[in-house]
Amino acid sequence: MQKTITLAMGNGGTESSELIQKVIYRHLGNDILAKAEDATPLPTLTNPCFTTDSFTITPFFFNGGDIGKLSVAGVCNDLAMMGAKPKFLSLSFIIEEGFGLREFEKILRSIKKELAINGAKVVTGDTKVVPRGSCDGIYINMSGIGKRVANVTQSNIEEGDVVLLSGDMARHGASVFAAREGIELANEIESDCKSLWPVVDGLLQELTPKAMRDATRGGVAAVLNEWAAATGLCMEIEEEACAVDESVQGICEILGFEPFALANEGTFVLAVRSEEAKRALEILQRHNPKAAIIGRVSRSYPGRVVLKSPWGTKRFLDMPSGEILPRIC
Amino acid sequence: MQKTITLAMGNGGTESSELIQKVIYRHLGNDILAKAEDATPLPTLTNPCFTTDSFTITPFFFNGGDIGKLSVAGVCNDLAMMGAKPKFLSLSFIIEEGFGLREFEKILRSIKKELAINGAKVVTGDTKVVPRGSCDGIYINMSGIGKRVANVTQSNIEEGDVVLLSGDMARHGASVFAAREGIELANEIESDCKSLWPVVDGLLQELTPKAMRDATRGGVAAVLNEWAAATGLCMEIEEEACAVDESVQGICEILGFEPFALANEGTFVLAVRSEEAKRALEILQRHNPKAAIIGRVSRSYPGRVVLKSPWGTKRFLDMPSGEILPRIC
Repeated sequence: MQKTITLAMGNGGTESSELIQKVIYRHLGNDILAKAEDATPLPTLTNPCFTTDSFTITPFFFNGGDIGKLSVAGVCNDLAMMGAKPKFLSLSFIIEEGFGLREFEKILRSIKKELAINGAKVVTGDTKVVPRGSCDGIYINMSGIGKRVANVTQSNIEEGDVVLLSGDMARHGASVFAAREGIELANEIESDCKSLWPVVDGLLQELTPKAMRDATRGGVAAVLNEWAAATGLCMEIEEEACAVDESVQGICEILGFEPFALANEGTFVLAVRSEEAKRALEILQRHNPKAAIIGRVSRSYPGRVVLKSPWGTKRFLDMPSGEILPRIC
Repeated sequence: MQKTITLAMGNGGTESSELIQKVIYRHLGNDILAKAEDATPLPTLTNPCFTTDSFTITPFFFNGGDIGKLSVAGVCNDLAMMGAKPKFLSLSFIIEEGFGLREFEKILRSIKKELAINGAKVVTGDTKVVPRGSCDGIYINMSGIGKRVANVTQSNIEEGDVVLLSGDMARHGASVFAAREGIELANEIESDCKSLWPVVDGLLQELTPKAMRDATRGGVAAVLNEWAAATGLCMEIEEEACAVDESVQGICEILGFEPFALANEGTFVLAVRSEEAKRALEILQRHNPKAAIIGRVSRSYPGRVVLKSPWGTKRFLDMPSGEILPRIC
């Protein structure tokens, strides 16, 4: 077999089946995928949740992950955030002619590893190869079906609820930016890219979380603003409670980035009834000691997010706008 | 709002929501999509089928369709071919910075129109914007969930079954090729791009089709070879029975293409019990008068496809290999 992906591998004929059978199935094959024809029959699904995400990140390999790990984590996290256990995934590649088969297999191995963490399977797929220059290396789309085991939604949020953050902010954005720009600190900053089902499962075993949202594009600022807008309530956040790693803070200060607006890929915001806050924090800290209670839901400024400093001053945190970091995911 | 898609529209913040709310939802909004957060809760799904496809076709607008119509038809046809009624779709865009908003809306209108033909809804989505040069205009991924109403699969195929083709071959491949190369005949050849659920529904109301497969990349040759390989039986096909439009034939002859290997996007191969062949043909011809009985399943050459000429000669039709036409879908 060739050492790079060729146009012929996207032709729907001999070379396509060779790539699918000898490479993709070798890593990701399973009993359900084996029955796939034009579509894949699945068992009956009760309380399903459905989501999709395309990944165009550059570089494909970054400190803490790669586009394969990111794809599985990204889609499974979207399910987990709704209280749904990830089950069945689709996997679609758009690959640029000439992409290395070795890199492709490395991505497949990451996908396999991350699937296991979620207990999910790839059950249907598609591979397109486009001529050189028509895409930048490799793009991945994954769609996912999960089984909803708890009614987690932003519409549960009420005045008095407590808001937690599952770890320190902005690692993914800062690490990708640093890697891309060749900044010296790059190796010190590891992306938070991670599947959240294990920690979510832990929460759901004991508690009844009201809302969860992973803080991807737009960061923690986007999540809090969406919740404030959707509920008409105020998210009152203690700025100092939101952890930021020192190297991440360094990059943000040099470049004028707001850590609240930078992307995360394995860090989420959680709203719980105040009675559950302490136990929720303990469970989160088992997975990440930097998890913290960061604020509460009030009626002070309806529909707005307020950041409070340790000195008692307040500022509004707005929905991010403009684009500082394209192709972050 | 800007007249072109900007990087900021993929940032997950203000401009992203504006694009989603004011443009995408305006065309495709529905009651289920309105409840989407990170993922979308769906009603319980009995006998579900799941499929995915990415579309990278160039040009985006062609005679007989565009990338929007093609995406919906492509994914819904994959479901229909398994005997599944298309129900819930995901929709993910990768858009190049600078893509015209007017063209984008034209694509959304096509998607809407084609969804109605299938009785399907977009229930979850994603939009990424990549910098100029990182993709070629617009790529679309759709994944689809359908409800299987009949057990249609290639493993039902037995010796004696009759094979039908739902229309004339190779229109999509020839029309896209002609459009791309500026060949004069271009305007005369219309792609067969079409949603097949209506004709499949007609078949399923009265008959028990054994297997169906739309002849996309790799054409009719790929479908017949896959069936021959999967069943170990011989597909004996009457070459003259397979209709090819005169202009399509002209392009194939000039360029040395094999119409059996060119892509279709609304034409399928059907295997039925011999008792059902006549009625199946009548139903197919209601939708396309060029539908025909093209052959039968035998044991003559196990695992092979044989084309028989009117003069009694035979040749093998192989699985297509190489790539003559990238970005056909």
